Amino acid sequence: MGVGIGIIGFGTVGSGVVKLLLKNGTILKERVGKELVLKKVADIDLERDRGIKLPSELLTRNAEHVIEDPEVDIVVELIGGIQPARDYILKALERHKPVVTANKALLAQYGKELFKFAAERGLSIGFEASVGGGIPIVKAIKEALVGNDIKAIFGILNGTSNYILTRMSEEGMSFNEALREAQRMGIAEADPSLDVDGWDAAHKITILASLAFGRWVDFRKVYVEGIRDLTPSDIQFAKEFGYAIKLLAIAKKDPDGIQIRVHPTMVPERHLLAQTRGYFNAIYVVGDAVGPLLFYGQGAGSLPTASAVLSDLADLAKGNCYLPSFKDEDGSVKEMGELKTVYYLRFSAVDRPGVLSKISGILGENDISIASVIQKGRTRKGAVPIVMITHEAVERNIKRALREIDKLDVIKKPTKLIRAEVFDL
Amino acid sequence: MGVGIGIIGFGTVGSGVVKLLLKNGTILKERVGKELVLKKVADIDLERDRGIKLPSELLTRNAEHVIEDPEVDIVVELIGGIQPARDYILKALERHKPVVTANKALLAQYGKELFKFAAERGLSIGFEASVGGGIPIVKAIKEALVGNDIKAIFGILNGTSNYILTRMSEEGMSFNEALREAQRMGIAEADPSLDVDGWDAAHKITILASLAFGRWVDFRKVYVEGIRDLTPSDIQFAKEFGYAIKLLAIAKKDPDGIQIRVHPTMVPERHLLAQTRGYFNAIYVVGDAVGPLLFYGQGAGSLPTASAVLSDLADLAKGNCYLPSFKDEDGSVKEMGELKTVYYLRFSAVDRPGVLSKISGILGENDISIASVIQKGRTRKGAVPIVMITHEAVERNIKRALREIDKLDVIKKPTKLIRAEVFDL
Repeated sequence: MGVGIGIIGFGTVGSGVVKLLLKNGTILKERVGKELVLKKVADIDLERDRGIKLPSELLTRNAEHVIEDPEVDIVVELIGGIQPARDYILKALERHKPVVTANKALLAQYGKELFKFAAERGLSIGFEASVGGGIPIVKAIKEALVGNDIKAIFGILNGTSNYILTRMSEEGMSFNEALREAQRMGIAEADPSLDVDGWDAAHKITILASLAFGRWVDFRKVYVEGIRDLTPSDIQFAKEFGYAIKLLAIAKKDPDGIQIRVHPTMVPERHLLAQTRGYFNAIYVVGDAVGPLLFYGQGAGSLPTASAVLSDLADLAKGNCYLPSFKDEDGSVKEMGELKTVYYLRFSAVDRPGVLSKISGILGENDISIASVIQKGRTRKGAVPIVMITHEAVERNIKRALREIDKLDVIKKPTKLIRAEVFDL
Repeated sequence: MGVGIGIIGFGTVGSGVVKLLLKNGTILKERVGKELVLKKVADIDLERDRGIKLPSELLTRNAEHVIEDPEVDIVVELIGGIQPARDYILKALERHKPVVTANKALLAQYGKELFKFAAERGLSIGFEASVGGGIPIVKAIKEALVGNDIKAIFGILNGTSNYILTRMSEEGMSFNEALREAQRMGIAEADPSLDVDGWDAAHKITILASLAFGRWVDFRKVYVEGIRDLTPSDIQFAKEFGYAIKLLAIAKKDPDGIQIRVHPTMVPERHLLAQTRGYFNAIYVVGDAVGPLLFYGQGAGSLPTASAVLSDLADLAKGNCYLPSFKDEDGSVKEMGELKTVYYLRFSAVDRPGVLSKISGILGENDISIASVIQKGRTRKGAVPIVMITHEAVERNIKRALREIDKLDVIKKPTKLIRAEVFDL
């Protein structure tokens, strides 16, 4: 007995899925008890060499041919972006075909609508490939942690940014140098904004948080800050304090609401997230019963992502892939001003007596106490960096204090702020 | 609609399951769409205070009452050991009730028979809790990696041993000191043999290897070596070579058969397995499509293990928990003599000119080449340690060379051998 598979999007992931179905089809059939049979593949470009030959009757330039093909039982959407991906998924569901997608941007913004549409028809949407590439984090949260009240998720969810940060940290490269290296190696795109400005990670943490907390989180409420402004010297100072800097996507369930944010974050050097190097992803999840779990692997790439698509296809073929349940009401997201955490502050100050006392005076007035300070020698420009780690403080107070401090005439540049996670959960 | 749960064994894990059902029952019901209702709990000892009050009509001293209760739909076996656990599981399956078990010793030795018995009746056995405590490694291999040809598994599968090795490594403790500490903290049992001699890890890797490779691996063919003979100085020398020593359980699929073994293993310091500290477990799995994945978390304990039991219960309640398929023929396990890896060798030699040349001569005759050597000053006993890392060599040749070397009159004690993994997969 076969299950007909139709794929829309014959790009990096699409061709990975086709290759993997060809390579491991036999094992898969034994394990699933049914054969997954490729019936149709749509792409605008059918000329490009993808290293696989498919019979021409399987190929089409028209996505509707995949959706309408009566032999296609499951539609796999791998074109990415909002439109026409959204329409294709809706059409497939209308035709009573379950869907598998790797489309994080779409799910982060239209997941609520799509999942509702599918649920009303008794259908499922598989989305393992939308977060963490080959890491089975969706299955873990949806199924393995089903008995847990999930408290927090901390993810290195963008391999490109992590690669850049690793090169900056290990070789002292600037952001621009490391970005160019990443582009040269095909790890970053020509327009890297989605990756390095944090949007891709924001899409993914929106999906994970919604799944973990059982309520959709409004993507527009995610605080997003990328890694462009990080300097090798910040990374160096962080090291001196015992931290690595990672682009973390964080979701926490506090008693009074959800924290959800993406920003460069100082992580204690010994933590496994700090040890996650290169283009790898890692997700640290804390459940009330299970405690902390870490999942690590390749968060992107043709075959790793195809592995996740096949996991969904196998579950659908077995009738095991179910939609998670969501409350009607969205999750209530807290304002960033309410955040309480530890902060790294780098002041660019004139090297003059009394400066440190002025700064720490203003911090003190704003209820911010200092855990440690590094003050280094003069820079060529005559300003010295004064670097501090605070004790836990409230973001609103930090912002107020920095506005005041940055107005001082002894301060030469806007103060740099990096949030830290101390993982005392 | 409710699903009736019966539990045999109201110990650490059993009481964790009961607590978790009480605490997160509501979330679980929303997620699963059905209520998991505790119907019966059996234990020999019903007097002990477990911190939970259960109505007395739910409690029984007789396991058969759980199995026979018509309101019990799923039987959870948590007593451990071979008998009577095996009989209880068979009886539950005979009564057409699916089973959830955390019993690694039983599955490693009788899994083939039990799975066959269940499959013949169209029933399933959930065993997520049998390996890695709360880490969803069974689900990951069984479901998430279904599209992968799994090449290798490297696991820190015994938290007690890892705790002992961590204390030895970080504080220079001897094995016995660290064991006593572990016993004092309740991490090691009075009789620690199952943990520190590698048997527990061997049970678990047998289960994972069978699952990953789709053929049962005969537990009696697993090579097992524990950590009792490790000394702080070996750990120190390993560090100097850039390695940590971990009790690794290893399963690899070579073209000519399966490697399956548990022994102290040198792991490159930077590897996440080397960074896994204390009583935590970690499993590094390599699939042909997904590449390497790491799963990390608490491998034991009441609530983490209960989290895994609830995952199986939820899957069974939804009808999603299926038995993996196995080939009739068992996996063919390779002899240890055929192993090719990198070795650490510590010779206890008399401090006399020509000793190193004698040793390296014998190694050379046996096709073993040396990658690096450390020779330290004299010990009080007049013998000096000569420590080497070899290039990749064949275990049979190593053993032959060591037999010859250990006969030399300049060698004062049997040579210590520790295998290394270089992770160039």
